[in-house]
Amino acid sequence: MLAQRLLGELEFAGQRITRLVLTDQVPIQVQDPRVETWVAPLLSCCDQIAGARFDGVFHLASAVSAECEADFDLGMRSNLESTRALLQALRAAGNVPRLVFASSAAVFGADPPLSPVPSPVHDHTLPTPQTSYGTQKLMLEQLIADMTRKGFLDGRAVRLLTVSVRPGRPNGAASGFLSGIIREPLAGVPTVCPVPLETRVALASPGATLTALGRVYQATREELGGRTALNLPALSVSVGEMLDQLDAVAPAARALVRVEPDPRIENIVASWPSAFHAERARRLGLAPDPSFGHIIAAYMETHPDALKIERRPHGGGRHQGIQ
Amino acid sequence: MLAQRLLGELEFAGQRITRLVLTDQVPIQVQDPRVETWVAPLLSCCDQIAGARFDGVFHLASAVSAECEADFDLGMRSNLESTRALLQALRAAGNVPRLVFASSAAVFGADPPLSPVPSPVHDHTLPTPQTSYGTQKLMLEQLIADMTRKGFLDGRAVRLLTVSVRPGRPNGAASGFLSGIIREPLAGVPTVCPVPLETRVALASPGATLTALGRVYQATREELGGRTALNLPALSVSVGEMLDQLDAVAPAARALVRVEPDPRIENIVASWPSAFHAERARRLGLAPDPSFGHIIAAYMETHPDALKIERRPHGGGRHQGIQ
Repeated sequence: MLAQRLLGELEFAGQRITRLVLTDQVPIQVQDPRVETWVAPLLSCCDQIAGARFDGVFHLASAVSAECEADFDLGMRSNLESTRALLQALRAAGNVPRLVFASSAAVFGADPPLSPVPSPVHDHTLPTPQTSYGTQKLMLEQLIADMTRKGFLDGRAVRLLTVSVRPGRPNGAASGFLSGIIREPLAGVPTVCPVPLETRVALASPGATLTALGRVYQATREELGGRTALNLPALSVSVGEMLDQLDAVAPAARALVRVEPDPRIENIVASWPSAFHAERARRLGLAPDPSFGHIIAAYMETHPDALKIERRPHGGGRHQGIQ
Repeated sequence: MLAQRLLGELEFAGQRITRLVLTDQVPIQVQDPRVETWVAPLLSCCDQIAGARFDGVFHLASAVSAECEADFDLGMRSNLESTRALLQALRAAGNVPRLVFASSAAVFGADPPLSPVPSPVHDHTLPTPQTSYGTQKLMLEQLIADMTRKGFLDGRAVRLLTVSVRPGRPNGAASGFLSGIIREPLAGVPTVCPVPLETRVALASPGATLTALGRVYQATREELGGRTALNLPALSVSVGEMLDQLDAVAPAARALVRVEPDPRIENIVASWPSAFHAERARRLGLAPDPSFGHIIAAYMETHPDALKIERRPHGGGRHQGIQ
C-alpha cells in the first residue's frame, strides 16, 4: 500500500520517484516499470543496499509481537540484528540516506507497581515496554537517534498504532481482531470479538498510517523537533462504538459478530494505551481519523471485492449513515 | 573497591561470600583466598561465566564516554555486544542469576529543540541520551528489563552518577576534572578547572556509589519497584562550592587550582543534569552524600598516601571546618 501511494505521487520529498526497490522474504506484487523487487531475507540484502545508495528507505519489516514473545531469539535476530545490519548498510552507503523506521505504540505499557498504563500518552511519556517486541523497537529507536546525531544517516522513527481496518487475511497479532470484527463480517464470515464492548482502543486507518509515514519522511529535522521517536494521533474508540458503526452501515454484518471475551487477549489489550495526545505529530499537520464510521466507509470503498454483504441504503439507517 | 567492600561483609544477600571471581582485561590486585581473577576480554569469558553458574554478577566494565564518541564501533562492540554476550551467558547458566548493571546518568540530556536538560531528573523523566555511550547504556537497560521479565535473569540497572573524589590517575572522561580538582592539588600537583565556578554538577562519592550497588543487588523485586533503571540521589554542588570546601581543609591545595574554562568541556558538562530527585532510590534507603566537605574528608582519610599537602588544623579554617 505504501509503494502504491508513493508511486502515485507526482513529487515526493522534492523529487519524482524514478526507481523503487521493494524487498521482502515473500514475492511482492506491484506492477510498475519503476519497481524492482528483491525477494530475500533482509540480512542478505544489506551489501546490495549499501551499494545502491538509496535516497531514502522505509523500514517496515518486523517479526510481530506474538512471535517475539514466543521466541525471544527470533525477535532479537529478526528485529534487532537485521535492523542493525540495515543501519550499518545505510551508513556504509556514505550518502546519509533518509530512513523512516516503523516503531510501535507497543513501546508503551504499564510499569507495575509504579505506573498504570499511561493514558493519554504524551510526547514526554516514559516508554516502559511490556513485550520483547516493544523492547526491540525501543532499542532501535535509540540506536537510530544516535546514528542520526553522528551524521551516519537521517533517521526518523514513527510509533505506529494498531491499524484498522487492515485488509487481507487475519494474522497472529493480538490486535488482529480490531480489523477482524469489521473485515470478516463484511465478507459474510461470522467472527468472535474477544474483549468486552466497553474496551477502549487507539487506532489509525491504513490511510492515516500511510499519510503519517509519508509526512515524517518529508519533514525537515526542524519540523520533526526532537530526537525521540514520534507518537501518532489516534482515534480513541470503544469496541462497542466500532460495532455500532458497523451496524449503522451493514446490520447483517454486525449480526455476525459474537462477543466472547478471552481473558488472554483482554489482558494484552488492557496493557495498551487507549489514547494519545501527539503534540509533535499534530504540529506536522497529522490528525487522527475523524471517526470509525469514516474508517469503515473508506475500507468498503477501497475493497469492494472483500464485501459479501448487502450495504444499508444511504440515509436508511437506524444510526447515522456513512457518507 | 567493590570487591573489597563485598569481601568485608559478614553476610551479603543472605549468604557468606565464599568465592568471588574478578574479570578484567588488565591484571587485578586483590589479596584474598576467596578471590579468583580471570584476565581476559569479557567476550572470551562468556562460556566460563555460563558454566560457573554464579549467584550474582556486578557488570561494571564499559568503554567510557569519550572513547565511544571518538569510535562508534568500539562502543557498540565493547558496550552493546559484550554485554549482550554476558546476558546470554547468564541466561544459558540456567539458574536465573542476579545482575547489577552499571548504567549511567548519561542516559539523560537535553533534547533540543523540545527540551532543555531536565532538572531535577525524576524517576519518570524521559531519557534522551546525547552520546553514544548514554545510548548504549539505555539500550542495555531495556534489554535487561526484558530478559528479566522473561525470567532469564534477575537484572537491575543503576544509573551511576559522576563519582568524586575518584582515587588514582586521571582518565579521559570529560567528568575527570571533578575528581582532579581535588585529588591533584591534595597531592601537591597544580591543576586546571575547565569550567566556571558557578557550574552546578550532580555527584556521588565512591562510598555512596558502592552502597547503592550493594543495596540494589540485595533489594527484592518488590522493593525495587518498577522495571526501569534506578536513578540515584545526587549531591548537587557548584564547582565553586567544591573548591571552597577544599580551601577550608587545605588552602595551599586550593591555591594550586587555576580556573580556565574550556568551552568543549563546559558544553559537555552543561548537557548533564545537575540535580536528581530519585524517589525510588530514596525508598530503598539510599541518600545523597551529606556535603562535599564530607566527601573530601572521606577521601583524605582513606587515601593518606595520596596527600602531599599540609592539612589545615581542625577548627582553624576561615570556612567551616571538616569533622
